[in-house]
Amino acid sequence: MSRTEIKDYGEFGLIHHLTKNIELQNASSILGVGDDAAVIDHFGKQTVVTTDLLIEGVHFDLSYTPLKHLGYKSVVVNVSDIYAMNATPTQITLSIGLSSRFSVEAIEEFYEGVYIACEEYGVDLIGGDTSASQKGFIISVTAIGEVVAEKIVKRSTAQKGDLICCSGDLGGSYIGLLFLEREKKIYLENPQIQPDLENESYVIGRLLKPKARKDIHQFLEENNIVPTSMMDISDGLSSELLHICEKSGVGCMIHEEKLPISEESRSAAYKFEIDPTACALSGGEDYELLFTIKQADYDKLTLNEQISVIGYVTDAEEGAKIKTKGGNLHNITAQGWNAFKQQ
Amino acid sequence: MSRTEIKDYGEFGLIHHLTKNIELQNASSILGVGDDAAVIDHFGKQTVVTTDLLIEGVHFDLSYTPLKHLGYKSVVVNVSDIYAMNATPTQITLSIGLSSRFSVEAIEEFYEGVYIACEEYGVDLIGGDTSASQKGFIISVTAIGEVVAEKIVKRSTAQKGDLICCSGDLGGSYIGLLFLEREKKIYLENPQIQPDLENESYVIGRLLKPKARKDIHQFLEENNIVPTSMMDISDGLSSELLHICEKSGVGCMIHEEKLPISEESRSAAYKFEIDPTACALSGGEDYELLFTIKQADYDKLTLNEQISVIGYVTDAEEGAKIKTKGGNLHNITAQGWNAFKQQ
Repeated sequence: MSRTEIKDYGEFGLIHHLTKNIELQNASSILGVGDDAAVIDHFGKQTVVTTDLLIEGVHFDLSYTPLKHLGYKSVVVNVSDIYAMNATPTQITLSIGLSSRFSVEAIEEFYEGVYIACEEYGVDLIGGDTSASQKGFIISVTAIGEVVAEKIVKRSTAQKGDLICCSGDLGGSYIGLLFLEREKKIYLENPQIQPDLENESYVIGRLLKPKARKDIHQFLEENNIVPTSMMDISDGLSSELLHICEKSGVGCMIHEEKLPISEESRSAAYKFEIDPTACALSGGEDYELLFTIKQADYDKLTLNEQISVIGYVTDAEEGAKIKTKGGNLHNITAQGWNAFKQQ
Repeated sequence: MSRTEIKDYGEFGLIHHLTKNIELQNASSILGVGDDAAVIDHFGKQTVVTTDLLIEGVHFDLSYTPLKHLGYKSVVVNVSDIYAMNATPTQITLSIGLSSRFSVEAIEEFYEGVYIACEEYGVDLIGGDTSASQKGFIISVTAIGEVVAEKIVKRSTAQKGDLICCSGDLGGSYIGLLFLEREKKIYLENPQIQPDLENESYVIGRLLKPKARKDIHQFLEENNIVPTSMMDISDGLSSELLHICEKSGVGCMIHEEKLPISEESRSAAYKFEIDPTACALSGGEDYELLFTIKQADYDKLTLNEQISVIGYVTDAEEGAKIKTKGGNLHNITAQGWNAFKQQ
């Protein structure tokens, strides 16, 4: 029997490989695997469902992640997927697996963060499962949202000429991770040394306590803007742009100078001698919204300082490109989180 | 800071402890934590959502669980919760965490079982997440179902005088586990010895490939029977009876002689010198339906040989009792899976 390694597929390839033969059976299943969330029609209105699995040592490191922040973030990353469908989150389910190393007080702290996020985003925790785990902390959240059918926004519907927009700023979360990993290493080598993170609260906050863009969702709604495509930025801007281009059958042109990068992220990146643009393109976990709009909607956008127009949609043959500040053109490639060292 | 151990609460106690202060925010959240599944109102009709986390080494042992069976069972245990609400399952999401020890072929086998179950129960796999894990195989399934509001059946609505019914037969799954654990031990001590499970295919099948009772759900529907309360038997009959009694504020009287136990389970139990009744009461993972009906519906039940009437609902003050074949009365206690040794 032949053996293929999972890494040969990669996460997206594996999901595609395993699900490519699904034929939806129920008339109520409008959209299945392949977008930020699945869509279920319920008698005229539609329900949006998304789910995420977070595993200690893979997705988070409890040596520098407060449990309350972790609980908050577990909800936020799912709610962010609901907004990315242009839907309003309404409920979540939460399952956790725990080794005996955790006390009730520790789990209470985790749930405190969960409930703060539920309050902030207006969702009800309506179910779940609690279980032992052999090792570490395992978190599974399913989020449900609602939307009128004609307002659902997928990844596959961007069109040539559309403007490419992005909320907030990018790259901070990755740089926050670099700081925390560095301090962890120093601490492990010499526990006497106190962490020096005082000036980095912005980028560390971006990693440990990200926000889902409820405000952007509301702004789009209030201003009658229905994006032509949308997704949230969890794996990095480059990776998400390539998803939209592939699914929509288009190309894109991004301008480096338009990429929103905070001053805090920029100066923090320089401390590590890495390029802030590389962080913005390839750093994950910012949970900003990436979306495309018709040019006719441009004027409405200028009302919101939290939205940057970073480029435009081109023909598929033109590929996915970025124009640097120096005027050079580069292909956009999905490098993922650990690719910075080569730059 | 004080430290309370998780085991001091137990699973149900911990969930209760962590969720007791939830106030549902959305008008669409009809039923939250505390039943087999949560209920969401969608514009006249209602959606049912349930979720389960399955962790290697805790919920399953891959040394004797074929991955295809595991995939099948992962769906079944969730779909069973949907039927337990008297709803029809329509969609699932599936997240898995995997260590690099698994090959693509192994995961394909797992998904093969998932898809067989999806086909059998008419559900669409509509989303999920795939992730690395530091150790072992982690599975999280969320199942969604639909039902007209007036047919939802909860745990909390049994009434004095109702008949207590149970589908199929009980205890087999636990006895199947005993066989597999015994053979595993023998194998580990001496890998030359081949497993001797030929005559135990029934009880082993009950453990490795349980069915959700779609047929009972359909029978109840076709015969216009709406149970007064219902849940599925995943932790053992005793435990589930106590749940219904507590939530409904009632007692119960069960007759040992009425407990449905297959001949295969009975003779298999004797090989381990354990009481088949103890297995039926405390063995988990049978995924049969436990429900109560009005006495007026009794005649309709006799049409279905897969349903046993095992007792009746009493006043709360009378407690939860079982009358043995010898005529003695005992309190029903939730002993759980590992309590057999003391008997």
